Amino acid sequence: MISVLKRFLIGRPLKSHELGEQKLNKTKALAILSSDALSSVAYGPEQILIVLITVSSAAFWYSIPIAVGVLILLTALILSYRQIIFAYPHGGGAYVVSKSNLGVNPGLVAGGSLLVDYILTVSVSVSAGTDAITSAFPTLHQYNVGIAIAFVIFITLLNLRGVTESASILAYPVYLFVVALFILIGVGLYHIVTGGVSPQLHTPLGTPVAGLSLFILLKAFASGSSALTGVEAISNAIPNFKDPAPKNAAKTLMAMGALLAVLFSGIVFLAYYYGISPNAEVTVVSQIAEETFGRNFMYFFIQGTTALILILAANTGYSAFPLLAVNLAKDKFIPRMFLIRGDRLGYSNGIIILGIASIILILAFKAETESLIPLYAIGVFLPFTLSQSGMMVKWLREKPQGWVPKFIINTTGALISLVVTLMFLITKFSQVWSILIFLPIIVYLFHRIRKHYDAVGDQLRLTTCEPLMPIEGNVLIVPVAGMTNVVANSINYAKSLSQDQIIAVYVSFERDDEKNFEEKWKKWQPDVRLVTLHSHYRSIINPLTKFVDIIEHKASEANYRVTVIIPQFIPKKGWHNILHNQSSLLIRAYLLFRRNVIITTVPYHLKK
Amino acid sequence: MISVLKRFLIGRPLKSHELGEQKLNKTKALAILSSDALSSVAYGPEQILIVLITVSSAAFWYSIPIAVGVLILLTALILSYRQIIFAYPHGGGAYVVSKSNLGVNPGLVAGGSLLVDYILTVSVSVSAGTDAITSAFPTLHQYNVGIAIAFVIFITLLNLRGVTESASILAYPVYLFVVALFILIGVGLYHIVTGGVSPQLHTPLGTPVAGLSLFILLKAFASGSSALTGVEAISNAIPNFKDPAPKNAAKTLMAMGALLAVLFSGIVFLAYYYGISPNAEVTVVSQIAEETFGRNFMYFFIQGTTALILILAANTGYSAFPLLAVNLAKDKFIPRMFLIRGDRLGYSNGIIILGIASIILILAFKAETESLIPLYAIGVFLPFTLSQSGMMVKWLREKPQGWVPKFIINTTGALISLVVTLMFLITKFSQVWSILIFLPIIVYLFHRIRKHYDAVGDQLRLTTCEPLMPIEGNVLIVPVAGMTNVVANSINYAKSLSQDQIIAVYVSFERDDEKNFEEKWKKWQPDVRLVTLHSHYRSIINPLTKFVDIIEHKASEANYRVTVIIPQFIPKKGWHNILHNQSSLLIRAYLLFRRNVIITTVPYHLKK
Repeated sequence: MISVLKRFLIGRPLKSHELGEQKLNKTKALAILSSDALSSVAYGPEQILIVLITVSSAAFWYSIPIAVGVLILLTALILSYRQIIFAYPHGGGAYVVSKSNLGVNPGLVAGGSLLVDYILTVSVSVSAGTDAITSAFPTLHQYNVGIAIAFVIFITLLNLRGVTESASILAYPVYLFVVALFILIGVGLYHIVTGGVSPQLHTPLGTPVAGLSLFILLKAFASGSSALTGVEAISNAIPNFKDPAPKNAAKTLMAMGALLAVLFSGIVFLAYYYGISPNAEVTVVSQIAEETFGRNFMYFFIQGTTALILILAANTGYSAFPLLAVNLAKDKFIPRMFLIRGDRLGYSNGIIILGIASIILILAFKAETESLIPLYAIGVFLPFTLSQSGMMVKWLREKPQGWVPKFIINTTGALISLVVTLMFLITKFSQVWSILIFLPIIVYLFHRIRKHYDAVGDQLRLTTCEPLMPIEGNVLIVPVAGMTNVVANSINYAKSLSQDQIIAVYVSFERDDEKNFEEKWKKWQPDVRLVTLHSHYRSIINPLTKFVDIIEHKASEANYRVTVIIPQFIPKKGWHNILHNQSSLLIRAYLLFRRNVIITTVPYHLKK
Repeated sequence: MISVLKRFLIGRPLKSHELGEQKLNKTKALAILSSDALSSVAYGPEQILIVLITVSSAAFWYSIPIAVGVLILLTALILSYRQIIFAYPHGGGAYVVSKSNLGVNPGLVAGGSLLVDYILTVSVSVSAGTDAITSAFPTLHQYNVGIAIAFVIFITLLNLRGVTESASILAYPVYLFVVALFILIGVGLYHIVTGGVSPQLHTPLGTPVAGLSLFILLKAFASGSSALTGVEAISNAIPNFKDPAPKNAAKTLMAMGALLAVLFSGIVFLAYYYGISPNAEVTVVSQIAEETFGRNFMYFFIQGTTALILILAANTGYSAFPLLAVNLAKDKFIPRMFLIRGDRLGYSNGIIILGIASIILILAFKAETESLIPLYAIGVFLPFTLSQSGMMVKWLREKPQGWVPKFIINTTGALISLVVTLMFLITKFSQVWSILIFLPIIVYLFHRIRKHYDAVGDQLRLTTCEPLMPIEGNVLIVPVAGMTNVVANSINYAKSLSQDQIIAVYVSFERDDEKNFEEKWKKWQPDVRLVTLHSHYRSIINPLTKFVDIIEHKASEANYRVTVIIPQFIPKKGWHNILHNQSSLLIRAYLLFRRNVIITTVPYHLKK
């Protein structure tokens, strides 16, 4: 039943050698890995205006120089990540770069930060997309949480089906969004060039603005930089590309950078020229679309694709999180289970954990995750800064031919990223202070996990090639509850293993019962020693454990092992299980975890 | 940790021979077993008036003859249950009486009906009591569900502590309520006798009322009879009484009947004489109290004790449900776990299941359980009818000395109960139809469970006194994941059991790896045969299961048993478990439930 459902939801299992077919070409990779970055265009320009309006709408012209700053940062980041792709062709992005060049702890800060960030990406973008949809259909607004969770489950299942399949489906809406924005920008520029838009709508560039401080400008710049979240995703996901993976990844990254630059500057320019003011009810992109087209088909087309891309931005998290987790798990900083490939060859544990964590966040914030956006932005720019600094160190240390321009690119990127990070920390401290608490905790946990794995490795390692000292013999303890076929079966098995050291143990709740049982037993199994224990408190486990302790103590002195043989009913139908007390399960768990005894379970399959 | 918490919540475990100290004297028994019946006084009279007002307030005088009818029914029920107590001194009430005299199915209908009814009792009375409290403090109203659940948990814990302890605590509010109502009735009657109440307030007895049909009168009678729910509880709980249990139970029953009769007729009379009309906002008892005392201390005293008794009515369910469940479990109609006495000698599984089921109902109905009251009433009167009919059959069959008056009492009770049952079915069909569906389902489930237990019994019974044919030998399969101390430990154990038939199985995911492993193995364990299986789908379970199948097939032909020896990490700290994939657990569960092999778990206790 469950396996049929699983097959229906995620498809037939794939053989390991089919992995090559699960690689992405550039068109699909661009779609699924850039959805996060491209979707930022839908809110990045708005973020700049929201800061500037706190001074006055006359300050809106500053959005143009600020956008130029963002474009410079974008260029530095793209060029820099291109260098990272070739330098670290196995992926891992900021984590691997920082770890290799700056040391383990900076690497863990970058990795932990991104890990949490991808969870935030999924929650924030799905919540935002859901909000965009339910804004159009207000009666659905009360079901926001449910709808958002349904989307997360849908995207999780798509990703469990495998990366190529999800890419085939998700590529359409991403390209539709790009096309929609291109048309919007194209038509908007045409209107401006043909004089269809009044130049009175905006303040000319260079108009002096009273009360504008450098702090406000930097804050606006930092807010606008939130449009750059997601550019690191490709560097994490290199192993998902078709061969030659690094080359394809680099080309995809450049294409994404170009698209992002055109769309971002187009939207900023139109918003400035149209003199659009941010508004809690209607987004900036929506206002531009209304100005450009009026409320016709194109307007709704842009609204619809924007909502979709916001939801699909989550998919970038699904592509990057599992691969980052693999890198951390390989280094033993997170549980080993993240290394396992699922039925469809994706790292399914990573995908599932990401889905569950996002659903928990959506539930905790009731799908109102706007307050998480600054946290999410700082969680990206911190790894940006670390990875660029890592590259700086790398060039300084290795000094390969022509390293100077590369060093300059990374230094520029590192400095701007650092400024953005600090601006977020300073200007939005009330929303991002928690990162100062949870990042150290995460890094501490990473170290604890690594320490445990190292300790286990030490304990498991064979220190000598010679086999262990052989065991002298075994004592077999068989708890018996009566004289039934099940008990006969267990005793019979015990006899086949050893003839001498079998002890049947009977726990009685009533004194009268004991003698009677012992007499019957003598007749039934004269060659098996019976020990009767009395239980005052109607517990089987306590007297049995005490008895096992005594035997185990004696046995270990003689290098004997103690095995407890427990019969277990296997009912024919699942629901029958609640009809049996299954004390065998309790006894087994208790003895196995608390005592040094071996537990043998002899199944007794009921036939009806 | 858990055991400390448990001890704090429910107290130290009791030895089995301390059971005698857990018996109730009459005063305490009256308090905890009659709280349900006595609490009905708080709403029973009101139910009559709610039906009569549908005609006109002139019809209120009919509440007097209807109350006389209810008193006759009460007398018949009390006398009849008194006879049941002496005839069936081991308790079980309606279930045992119906089963013994009418047959298994009527018994199961009565038992199933009461079982569900006690769950309804708890949910309905706790919800009603919570409502009474939050009506006084309207800001708490939004927390109704939480408060109701907290009360259920509190009463569950009290009952887990043991019946005497809960009785000691719960007796006070019950007697306070009785005293409060006695004062109310006394003062009210004094006012009437001294002429302090205008006789104009009520219509004189015998006033003709237009539009009053027999149907309405019967409906009013049925509604008023809901005050009699709970009178059967004592007959179910005889084993909780101090010796001589039946005699003490009978006396307690008579005392409860007398109290109930006095309080019920007092409230009905005062309501009639004061001309009180039912009101959605204020209860009838509250109106009488206000008329009698004004809004002084006594008024709030009566309100408070009424709210408390409504909540404590739930406790009757806790006393009767576990004992009824014991009777059904003894006859193998419900799971055996209901027979187990907990640490404090109560039937704790019954208590816990009742608590959980009630919480689920409260959650499902969001603590608005009024619509369940008719269902709850019919669920009591159906067993009433069946048990009285059962007694009729008993007297007719056995004809002991002086059986005729006894037969008349039971016949009267049976007839009136039947009428009430039918009235509920007819007049409130829209609220009680579900009983016609779920009762047959419950009875069907009872039979299914019984059938399973019988089948298991047949399979377990030793049909011969001779031991089974001895097992010829054992094949030991050891799945190995590498060459580590854990594997060495398991192989060592296998060797100590048998020298010949050990097979180590290695599941490889990559072809290159296999040869390498086999060579190393030969050097390390030259005397243990290694079989390497290749897994295309990265699953260990599938290839291992196929291999086990082949071995098991061969082994069973030669009367050999197959044992799979699985090593299991036991980490030092609980949280370490998530760091290990624990595939051993999955393998164990799969093989144990699906295949006829014995599973031996060799623990490997990690030291750090």
